[in-house]
Amino acid sequence: MDVEETVKRMQSQKGVTGVVIMDSLGRAIRSTLNDEETVKHTSLLRQLCDKAKSVTKELDSSNDVHFLRLKTSKNEIMVAPDRDYMVVVIYDKSS
Amino acid sequence: MDVEETVKRMQSQKGVTGVVIMDSLGRAIRSTLNDEETVKHTSLLRQLCDKAKSVTKELDSSNDVHFLRLKTSKNEIMVAPDRDYMVVVIYDKSS
Repeated sequence: MDVEETVKRMQSQKGVTGVVIMDSLGRAIRSTLNDEETVKHTSLLRQLCDKAKSVTKELDSSNDVHFLRLKTSKNEIMVAPDRDYMVVVIYDKSS
Repeated sequence: MDVEETVKRMQSQKGVTGVVIMDSLGRAIRSTLNDEETVKHTSLLRQLCDKAKSVTKELDSSNDVHFLRLKTSKNEIMVAPDRDYMVVVIYDKSS
């Protein structure tokens, strides 16, 4: 995928306040968040994604996670784990 | 909430293959799954929900999870944690 293009396209969507793309080792390769927030988001959302994957596998060993969406009181976080990349998009609900 | 009515209404939705409602201690108080599947789902999805809550709090201590949605290759699992109840709905994508 063209990472630069993808980030630009996502960021231009209404309400999107953050886009982070990390590689399979959990390193941010592109981020629209500041450094501190990027580190927090990559580390924590990777942990959450790993947990979602292991829960899904334990429920059905032949199943796999495509997409995780978290609605919170303040925003909405979407995580799309891929084989090589993990894409995180943060929406602000109030915008 | 009227638990019986809620389960019936959810179960009648197109594609819904399972509904589990658990109390704040993680005990299933209603389930349309068999006993073994109910135990697996309450335990694992509660763990996932707890992880989602802790990740959300670590990102922003004043934030909280309203809703978790997991798209997998086989189905879609929605988890709505409430103060007293946790509602799990499983959709079969192929139906």
